[in-house]
Amino acid sequence: MSIKNDLFLRALKGETVERPPVWMMRQAGRYLPEFMAIREKYDFFTRCRTPELASEITVQPIRRYGMDAAILFSDILVIPQAMNIEVQMKPNFGPYLPNPVHDQKGVDEVIVPDVNVELDYVMQAIKATKELLNNDIPLIGFAGSPWTILCYVVQGQGSKTFDKAKEFCFTNPVAAHQLLQKITDTTIAYLKAKVKAGVNAVQVFDSWGGMLSPVDYQEFSFKYIQQIIDALKEEALVIVFGKGCWFALGDMAKSGASALGVDWTCSARNARYLSGGNITLQGNFDPARLLSPPAVIKKMVTQMINEFGKDKYVVNLGHGILPNVPLDNAKAFIDAVKEYQQH
Amino acid sequence: MSIKNDLFLRALKGETVERPPVWMMRQAGRYLPEFMAIREKYDFFTRCRTPELASEITVQPIRRYGMDAAILFSDILVIPQAMNIEVQMKPNFGPYLPNPVHDQKGVDEVIVPDVNVELDYVMQAIKATKELLNNDIPLIGFAGSPWTILCYVVQGQGSKTFDKAKEFCFTNPVAAHQLLQKITDTTIAYLKAKVKAGVNAVQVFDSWGGMLSPVDYQEFSFKYIQQIIDALKEEALVIVFGKGCWFALGDMAKSGASALGVDWTCSARNARYLSGGNITLQGNFDPARLLSPPAVIKKMVTQMINEFGKDKYVVNLGHGILPNVPLDNAKAFIDAVKEYQQH
Repeated sequence: MSIKNDLFLRALKGETVERPPVWMMRQAGRYLPEFMAIREKYDFFTRCRTPELASEITVQPIRRYGMDAAILFSDILVIPQAMNIEVQMKPNFGPYLPNPVHDQKGVDEVIVPDVNVELDYVMQAIKATKELLNNDIPLIGFAGSPWTILCYVVQGQGSKTFDKAKEFCFTNPVAAHQLLQKITDTTIAYLKAKVKAGVNAVQVFDSWGGMLSPVDYQEFSFKYIQQIIDALKEEALVIVFGKGCWFALGDMAKSGASALGVDWTCSARNARYLSGGNITLQGNFDPARLLSPPAVIKKMVTQMINEFGKDKYVVNLGHGILPNVPLDNAKAFIDAVKEYQQH
Repeated sequence: MSIKNDLFLRALKGETVERPPVWMMRQAGRYLPEFMAIREKYDFFTRCRTPELASEITVQPIRRYGMDAAILFSDILVIPQAMNIEVQMKPNFGPYLPNPVHDQKGVDEVIVPDVNVELDYVMQAIKATKELLNNDIPLIGFAGSPWTILCYVVQGQGSKTFDKAKEFCFTNPVAAHQLLQKITDTTIAYLKAKVKAGVNAVQVFDSWGGMLSPVDYQEFSFKYIQQIIDALKEEALVIVFGKGCWFALGDMAKSGASALGVDWTCSARNARYLSGGNITLQGNFDPARLLSPPAVIKKMVTQMINEFGKDKYVVNLGHGILPNVPLDNAKAFIDAVKEYQQH
């Protein structure tokens, strides 16, 4: 059955649109009181693993603001969890992996799971969400890039520098590449299963790609993202978002991806130039700029669309929405796009 | 009296050199056992405020490795401290400001001090260091950029996003600009006093400039860095280092600065292109790459020099040296530069 509002899919395909589509990274998140109500009752992985909860959380922002795409509520760390690596989500701390991988033995113990068994709960959540969405808008599935997953798996927690993860790659590249390949194989199977379960597009989040030099980025991150794109592109629209990865936009544009995410440090002009000017771009409002007054937000969004151009463009933030964004400010962001009139 | 090894100063002036000079950001730091020995006995601000300690710490890495420039041991937060803002340095936590500025009243209470009184201990440390250095190599003085100082003054501590600092700027720009101007005025007086006390060059660290969009960067950071350059350039060589500020290299190149620092996400080729190809650049070895084996480090340093070119170039890291870098690895970095032969 076709999607009623297919603005997002048309933009990903590079088709002409009346206005650009809009969604927000982490739109199903802590700035929403209805999300906080569920969060008080159920812990993080219960929310991820219970299809009724994950689907409800996914559609909450859509009901409130009417974005042009939904993104399945889940987490990039369900992948290492399925690979036999313990992942905890600690309140006021973030992800915590009590047994990080730091040597060949650790890599050997990591498994490539049957995602249809270990991550069946995600597929059930997709099916439940599709029912709630009723084909009104497309549903996005996502995964972390293999490098970004390795960062957590080796570092064991969030970090400003991910120096342990980098040390592992730089001192034990053979083991690091084996780990990256296991994560890649799992991610490919996972995203294929998600597409089969009903998502209309997939996004690969390379949240920590910008920690690497351009040369190391090719070796430890992009090589594996390319494998994912190659495996998925025939059956799905693929968006690649590398935070801080402006230097890789040129290679990403030639990768077969349908669209590239851009963070707010890369101007529309630089992003179009670096990506060759022909691929759909997604972004790049500074999440902290959603703390500006609503009137300022609306003006800045209009200007952003004018700078990117209405076609081959998906309006989004340059990273996830912050928890302390007022509801009216999020509304101003979405409304400004819907009210957009080309000058 | 002239400096015996003036490679660094000649490179900053754009003169032809036999080989590029080398120093490392945070070279007087926690990877050195002789630094740790002093650190065990004296707390952070005692080390900063005692000329005998600050000067000894400054020359420790020079004795061990023979860098081509020393940088005075101090901290960017001595500025807000002198401006009547309490700054603590908490072990295993970093800077902590118990009374952050978050409104007009807070800004009004911030003073522009007489730096020759409040920061006289820095000037004494410079004089003591100059004696120890015996005119062998130049001494660098430094300050944080006004934006980077504001980040701490408003956020109250380190942060991955500095969202409170940004919120303050975006919701109360009038007060934010007043605070930035007070910091700028203090910084200009401070750096002028340092030059008078004997430093041979100054570096402005914009550690958190890369948190801002290019437009916000102009408004909240670069405008004030430009004021500092304008005030200092007649009497000192000025280096500007903005981490993550690749997008501003073009403007920085026209600012009157003598050299620009570059982080490791910006390749030599991109850095030369973005800065217009004519200004001296400084950087940009990934600090985590110093965890690679020494032979790999040496090879990568040689390649880095070949890519930047030996002239108009200062070899450095792309950010501060990490505490867990082995001594032999730091040595490999410095030695590779000294052994450099143009191909």
